[in-house]
Amino acid sequence: MKRVYTSDIAKHIGETITLSGWVHKLRKLGAISFLVIRDKNGLAQAIADAGDENDKLTGLTTETVANITGKVVAEERAPFGAELHIEKIEIISPVTEDVPISLNKKELNVNLDTLLDNRPLTLRAPAQRAIFKVQGVIISAFREFVMNEDFTEINTPKIVEAGLETGGAEMFEFKYFGKKAFLSQSPQMYKQIMVGVFERVFETAFIYRAEKHSTSRHINEYLSLDLEMGFIDSWTDIMDLEEKMMAYIINKLETECQEEFILLGATLPKIPKAIPRLKLSEVQTILEKEYKEKCLGEPDLEPIHERQICEYAAKNLGSEFVFVTHYPASKRPFYTHNDPKSPKETLSFDLLFRGVEITTGGQRFHLYQDYIDTMKARKMNIEDFSDYLTVFKYGMPTHGGLAIGCERITAKMLGLDNVKEASLFPRDINRLRP
Amino acid sequence: MKRVYTSDIAKHIGETITLSGWVHKLRKLGAISFLVIRDKNGLAQAIADAGDENDKLTGLTTETVANITGKVVAEERAPFGAELHIEKIEIISPVTEDVPISLNKKELNVNLDTLLDNRPLTLRAPAQRAIFKVQGVIISAFREFVMNEDFTEINTPKIVEAGLETGGAEMFEFKYFGKKAFLSQSPQMYKQIMVGVFERVFETAFIYRAEKHSTSRHINEYLSLDLEMGFIDSWTDIMDLEEKMMAYIINKLETECQEEFILLGATLPKIPKAIPRLKLSEVQTILEKEYKEKCLGEPDLEPIHERQICEYAAKNLGSEFVFVTHYPASKRPFYTHNDPKSPKETLSFDLLFRGVEITTGGQRFHLYQDYIDTMKARKMNIEDFSDYLTVFKYGMPTHGGLAIGCERITAKMLGLDNVKEASLFPRDINRLRP
Repeated sequence: MKRVYTSDIAKHIGETITLSGWVHKLRKLGAISFLVIRDKNGLAQAIADAGDENDKLTGLTTETVANITGKVVAEERAPFGAELHIEKIEIISPVTEDVPISLNKKELNVNLDTLLDNRPLTLRAPAQRAIFKVQGVIISAFREFVMNEDFTEINTPKIVEAGLETGGAEMFEFKYFGKKAFLSQSPQMYKQIMVGVFERVFETAFIYRAEKHSTSRHINEYLSLDLEMGFIDSWTDIMDLEEKMMAYIINKLETECQEEFILLGATLPKIPKAIPRLKLSEVQTILEKEYKEKCLGEPDLEPIHERQICEYAAKNLGSEFVFVTHYPASKRPFYTHNDPKSPKETLSFDLLFRGVEITTGGQRFHLYQDYIDTMKARKMNIEDFSDYLTVFKYGMPTHGGLAIGCERITAKMLGLDNVKEASLFPRDINRLRP
Repeated sequence: MKRVYTSDIAKHIGETITLSGWVHKLRKLGAISFLVIRDKNGLAQAIADAGDENDKLTGLTTETVANITGKVVAEERAPFGAELHIEKIEIISPVTEDVPISLNKKELNVNLDTLLDNRPLTLRAPAQRAIFKVQGVIISAFREFVMNEDFTEINTPKIVEAGLETGGAEMFEFKYFGKKAFLSQSPQMYKQIMVGVFERVFETAFIYRAEKHSTSRHINEYLSLDLEMGFIDSWTDIMDLEEKMMAYIINKLETECQEEFILLGATLPKIPKAIPRLKLSEVQTILEKEYKEKCLGEPDLEPIHERQICEYAAKNLGSEFVFVTHYPASKRPFYTHNDPKSPKETLSFDLLFRGVEITTGGQRFHLYQDYIDTMKARKMNIEDFSDYLTVFKYGMPTHGGLAIGCERITAKMLGLDNVKEASLFPRDINRLRP
């Protein structure tokens, strides 16, 4: 008999069908047993009277995988508005031991370490898997959007000979057939090279940071949603694009992930047509005035400041997103284009959302001489970057781009406390498994 | 003035427009200069008479990036059926040195090493970038297909504690905060874990093999198009799915990449409704008979055999694709489901295409005890796999999956001699840059 998904059960009222899935929950109420079966699309209720089949039910442990055949009867109180009256149970995989963590409670009631240590099981809990359903939609919405905008997908190496920045974020080092190699911390140089080929490129791939951070905002392997675009008229083109992209992603989540947001008790953000754009110094002035923070003139925002300005923007500017622009050159990588009107500032931005930076972006230099001058001023070894610099020697358009931290945007969309909750199998300073 | 892409030039006949791009070629024919400008979508011709603007043209070197403004005139012999009569040239990035490799010849005329050493420039050649336009379409067609089939995207770690196989393909090792870690050689275990969560999952990501191969079929970092599906009725479900997928990909290439196939002199493959499925022993019998190869009883096919059976299938079975099935258990990983009717054979397959294996797939064990028995028989350390084995202890459906080597399928679709030509920045035993 052809399998029916739990979500389609109400389409088959009066028919005999087979549901296939995991025994999510089993309880006896007098002479009736209630079996909740879980499949990829949700939960369905199946019931059995005392008797042969009910005896079979009594032996079932949670997480047993089975085909459950029976007649579909309308039942308003059941999920999806119908339930199955069990006629036959065929076990695919028996389970002989109790599952160490109850997956069928509304809350898992475990701490973060237990949650992550037991990922192969805890991910089966409906609220946990909902996180990654949402994440899948965010990633595919990103791709759809950029492909509609005529970007070409690229796949650039994660095994690299050298890093992006001398003295930048630390990198994992390893031996590559006798040579020293590193795990890539950013596709930045490759993205720019590829602007010389396709003008508009994007990549969705893991990148690696060997930083010893142990915060709720960092993981050592994370998915970067990257794009880079050529022939921009202004660096603000990049923010314009991200504004449209965020609206696209949120719209997609609204259409496809309503259930998941309800299950997780999360609220979709409101996004105005224009996300507020504030210079770093403007943000600092607001923080001094509204939060009594002495930060004016500092080269960057502290985590607390990011939370404060987001709170301020949500309350006063009608947006849970806010662009912070014009970071000083000293705090930005060498390739960042400076502001011709104010050369110590850069044409760069962060996008903050619900208290955290989820995007870094900006315009890059496109003239060879600008690279040489900046790298010399920063005492960088120009020879190390020869492959990269070639493209500027031989003609590059004005360009810029951005990178979105996928786990961060997922976590913030869903109100998760720790970014690790938005990584299937996170890697951090203590965690190399599962 | 708003920029127009070269591909849209014929829509603007009679108008004054701006093309933006790279100086691809410049030649003088008497009193007229012909400038070929290249942008992301193709090439366009622009002409100038002797005079002010022409003088400007004379100074232009190839790869200079510029905005070229002028009036569009219909011209049958020009690309896209129109040409630009130049009125103004605005240089975005000047080029002061001759480009070391001519990018505007029909053939680049460089050997493979020169091609790859100079990737940042050689990728700009129209035939080179066409390869990666096609690759982008293959990847997005794969994703579209599996998403239409209700698969969920997953992103599983590439930093892992241990490999898939004791004594399997070699892995890159590195230090992870004092612990020993490896680069993942396959998402296999994670895909299976995630079948327990989403039933149907896919991933498109780089994986790593530290093999010292130096062949035309191997690279050390390659993009794997992976999927895994639960609740299969039979292992043949997986081949059925791949058949539909290949048809989908080929159809997409036919629609979106006609020009690229012409440019590369490549031919789209013919795919029959049913791809021939031959047991390994049947293939060997054919090879003995048709090619006098003494291979019957061998556990695997040699590269020459893969070429021969593909040639045979193309000639005699009307298909450039052929499934080879029932490899012996000794040649397949421990998780491969054996054939209950013939336990030394497995329910596994390779998909061969134009002489090369582009997919490995099959059904996996789903019962805990089968894993314990097989791993014991193979003298594997069960303790090392405890996270993975948990999911089988606690209920897994029948399942199987496959992995497609993205560079291989790209290379074979386009008739490229070496898989490295289908990797933007390939990594091999000698190559760690660009």
